[in-house]
Parts: sequence; C-alpha cells; structure tokens
Amino acid sequence: MKVRLKIWIDHKGKAFGDGPYELLTRVEQTRSLHQAALQMKMSYSKAWRLIRTMEKRLGIPLLQRKVGGKFGGGSLITLEAKDLMARYEPFRKEAREAIEKIFQRYFYSSERKKPK
Amino acid sequence: MKVRLKIWIDHKGKAFGDGPYELLTRVEQTRSLHQAALQMKMSYSKAWRLIRTMEKRLGIPLLQRKVGGKFGGGSLITLEAKDLMARYEPFRKEAREAIEKIFQRYFYSSERKKPK
Repeated sequence: MKVRLKIWIDHKGKAFGDGPYELLTRVEQTRSLHQAALQMKMSYSKAWRLIRTMEKRLGIPLLQRKVGGKFGGGSLITLEAKDLMARYEPFRKEAREAIEKIFQRYFYSSERKKPK
Repeated sequence: MKVRLKIWIDHKGKAFGDGPYELLTRVEQTRSLHQAALQMKMSYSKAWRLIRTMEKRLGIPLLQRKVGGKFGGGSLITLEAKDLMARYEPFRKEAREAIEKIFQRYFYSSERKKPK
C-alpha cells in the first residue's frame, strides 16, 4: 500500500499546481510558451488559456512577452512567477514527505492502533 | 489562497479514500449497503462494485452479509474494515493539518523566501 496525493492552490478556483509549475519551468528554460507547450504535448492555445486563467485567479502576471531582438519574440516568466515557483516547489516536496511519514506511522508502525 | 488536497491509498490501483470511508461509515451506521448508497445518492450496484474493487485491491473483506433474523438481512462491516477506518480517519486529519501548516509557512510566513 502506498499513499497518493494531489495538491493544488485554490483561489477563486484551481489557481496553481503541478501542471502549471511544470509549464512555467519549461517556459523559463526555453523562453517560449510554444516550446514549453510542445514539450508537454499540450496545444499552444490550451497552454495560453491555462496561463491566463491562473493569472486572473492569482491576480499576478506570470508571463511577459519578449518583443523583437535578433531571434524574434518569446516569453519570459515574471518575478511574480519566480516567487510563486520558489515557494511552490519546496512546499510540495515538504508536503509529500510529511504525508508519507504520517502514512507510515498510521499504516506501518508496530505501535499501530488496534481495531475498535 | 488556500491549499487543497486529494489523498488516497493506492494498492494495485485506487484502493481507499474519502468516498469509500464515507460509504463504510454509513454502512456501519445503517447496517445496510442499500441505505448507505441511498444516503450518498449512489446506485446500489455502483456501491457494491466499489466495495468489491476495494476488497480485491486491499486483499481484505470489508463487508459481511447478515442473513435472516427478525428484520431480514443487511450488511455489517468486518473487523478488517474497522481497523482500516480507525487508521484512515486520523491519518487523513493529521495529513490535512500538516499540509495546512506547511502551506502557511511557505505562502504566508513573514520569513518567506524572496524570489530569485
């Protein structure tokens, strides 16, 4: 037996979670929402709508459009997005570890409670 | 912003979680899978399949059929089901509390990390 969990941040609806985190990470790496969406086998329009929805729900900008330059445009993540990601990643990791420990204690400890 | 989570036990697939816990609790109270399913607005056949699937995945019996008696049959939960429920309920509660604390620390603490 193992414990599984799905965790997300809610603010006026689903506002952030593992999928958005991965998408933003890939935008940061590739500097392109097109590339990030492609890597995640997600359509560009779906990725764009996801970003827009999160921006609205969280009330912060996540992407900024990079205009012009030698290789044309692209997308950069905002400082607000970096801040969110810098909190979310260790939060998620610590949450998973805590749950795993609690699970072990209730389901695999030798001091486990006897049934009523 | 608030944190949301969905938690379940996996063993050869989804093997136990909040829905099954509630169903078994209602069987325990009503001594009837029919009544329990009705209270949860679930069809009897769906409730029955859910129980059977969990029993197979967990490898333990959860319900025992009560035969005859003055008021006819019904369902009782097994000792194994009671043991599982006696672990699952406090596990779930403690898990939710731990996640809430970690979330507060990462997203609402004054000592929060600055963005990179």
